[in-house]
Amino acid sequence: MKQVTFTLAATDGAARRGRIDTPRGAIETPAFMPVGTVGTVKAMYPDQVRETGADILLGNTYHLMLRPGAERVAALGGLHQFMDWQRPILTDSGGFQVMSLAQLRKLTERGVTFKSHIDGSAHELTPERSIEIQTLLDSDIIMQLDECIALPAEHKEMERAMELSLRWADRSKSAFNNQANRALFGIVQGGDSPELRSRSAAGLKSIGFDGYAVGGLAVGEPQETMFRVLDEITPELPTDRPRYLMGVGKPDDILGGIGRGIDMFDCVHPTRAGRHGHVYTRFGVINLKNARHKDDPRPIDEQSPNLNCRRWSRAYLHHLVRTEEILGAMILSQINLAYYQELVGGARTAIEASRFTGFAAETRAGWAAGDLPVI
Amino acid sequence: MKQVTFTLAATDGAARRGRIDTPRGAIETPAFMPVGTVGTVKAMYPDQVRETGADILLGNTYHLMLRPGAERVAALGGLHQFMDWQRPILTDSGGFQVMSLAQLRKLTERGVTFKSHIDGSAHELTPERSIEIQTLLDSDIIMQLDECIALPAEHKEMERAMELSLRWADRSKSAFNNQANRALFGIVQGGDSPELRSRSAAGLKSIGFDGYAVGGLAVGEPQETMFRVLDEITPELPTDRPRYLMGVGKPDDILGGIGRGIDMFDCVHPTRAGRHGHVYTRFGVINLKNARHKDDPRPIDEQSPNLNCRRWSRAYLHHLVRTEEILGAMILSQINLAYYQELVGGARTAIEASRFTGFAAETRAGWAAGDLPVI
Repeated sequence: MKQVTFTLAATDGAARRGRIDTPRGAIETPAFMPVGTVGTVKAMYPDQVRETGADILLGNTYHLMLRPGAERVAALGGLHQFMDWQRPILTDSGGFQVMSLAQLRKLTERGVTFKSHIDGSAHELTPERSIEIQTLLDSDIIMQLDECIALPAEHKEMERAMELSLRWADRSKSAFNNQANRALFGIVQGGDSPELRSRSAAGLKSIGFDGYAVGGLAVGEPQETMFRVLDEITPELPTDRPRYLMGVGKPDDILGGIGRGIDMFDCVHPTRAGRHGHVYTRFGVINLKNARHKDDPRPIDEQSPNLNCRRWSRAYLHHLVRTEEILGAMILSQINLAYYQELVGGARTAIEASRFTGFAAETRAGWAAGDLPVI
Repeated sequence: MKQVTFTLAATDGAARRGRIDTPRGAIETPAFMPVGTVGTVKAMYPDQVRETGADILLGNTYHLMLRPGAERVAALGGLHQFMDWQRPILTDSGGFQVMSLAQLRKLTERGVTFKSHIDGSAHELTPERSIEIQTLLDSDIIMQLDECIALPAEHKEMERAMELSLRWADRSKSAFNNQANRALFGIVQGGDSPELRSRSAAGLKSIGFDGYAVGGLAVGEPQETMFRVLDEITPELPTDRPRYLMGVGKPDDILGGIGRGIDMFDCVHPTRAGRHGHVYTRFGVINLKNARHKDDPRPIDEQSPNLNCRRWSRAYLHHLVRTEEILGAMILSQINLAYYQELVGGARTAIEASRFTGFAAETRAGWAAGDLPVI
């Protein structure tokens, strides 16, 4: 019996309200997955991540295979035990970071060889080894290895990468061996070409996956290109499987993705932005490094349900950012992750009430109205 | 009516068990004060600091006068409000950091002028201005400005600095103006000379302070010199006032200080050591950077009352230290501050039971026995 299942509870236009059940707990969708790059969501205790409302984390295969190593994590009881996050974890395949971080990459039909960006050590990632690593990490949702290219790109190049990804999807499915306690997701590639995307989706469906990701977006193209590809491709994906838009994004991208039928998102942006002094709020993004906050006794948002948004003055947070204090990274990462969860939580409630369009419009109007006036 | 009072509850040899009451809460002594350098105990939320058992924090006048500035902190409601720590705060005078961090220092009878180590801006610190800044910060326990010199030093130089510090003590007392809701502490100087220390203590007593600090120790001298100076000087300090050993130290220094009649300690060491991968435990200090921990599934100390010591494997903490993840600094700073509080808490209980000598011996025996054997 498959222990990872998807239930679609409601739809509102293209937007979907669902739930993924796993042996480690449920994931309410639409869901945002914080990224625990190398076995930690940066500057956050796992309890704090959970308290923001996250049901699931993402772990990076590339980082974890290099440090501390997949076999080591397995010997220590798996990634959940290692970092003490007992709820579901999705792992990526490692392919994306190999392409963006590793050195001396060499791509063949078999897989990709590369040297570590940390110590230059040689490694190989094949569809089979990626599945093996993700299994060693004890991942709940495993991603196939694919080739993700930057946009814009030549049609021929997009086609080549899409077809390779499809052959790797097939090998991933065999290597995964239908493990009952985990899910395997395929990844739609094909760049910005509707025809290639369509062929990719058809190929994946004929192989059959527990979920379908849309990869190769948010890789340099304008938001409208991303939205157009989603408009074209999501209607071709099975309605009874979760859909995951990989590596996306900013709050507005997430609203747009949900409105186009996406169920899952992940991005390092909220924690990275927090470490750089930017916070996401119902007023839009606020740059706390800006001198306008230096003497401002007001909190980030006195009406926020998040205590960290009400507790300290903007002047204090500005001070922490300026002095590069770790507590600044801690507080602002938490504020951003909590806001992202508030956003997808609001979307879930709105879809249930058949008012997602109104919710998205109100949320965007709040961002457009901007921050509190300068004191 | 003076609102900051000291009650001596028990003695055990030279060791003392007491309580300082302030309008912002009680400080059980012997007490360890975590250092909130620039308005934050590094890598810790204020609640977490409190949960380790800390009754009081130390704030650094030098850092805060430069960033964000004392007048700005005052306009924002004072340091407690600024950082949201509602319990007592002791502030130093700024003198020590001026001597160790600032540039182009010029010391005169009037005070010290210097340039900021951050932006080169010019500043002056006099006994009067130091009191003013500490009052603007809304400090509960204010320190006189003194001149702290490194050891070893010439007798003549120690005498000059001690006498200047005594004249500044007198000016500090006048400037403090006997504020009822705060305490003012004088600082005994005189290097490693019993005669100079004695003259300093006599001079301070005749001026009259709410508490007496021993300054100019832990500035390069061997521990036995520090302990000898304490053996000589603490009997000359009033028994009805708290005694504070400034900037000390490691756990063994603290046990030694308590055994010699010291009531209060502060040091950046536990948080700094935590950021560098060192943790203090009943087994002594453990360097988590060391490869011996790489595959070790055991927690730091499964019998510790501190959850962070039981929750993660040494392998995970080693990984966080090696990858320089912020969560490593967060966890290890917490472990160290909690251990320091456990240490002074244990000392308090032992003094009440007239068994401080036994407690100190058992604690040192634990450190000497060392860490768990390699797996």
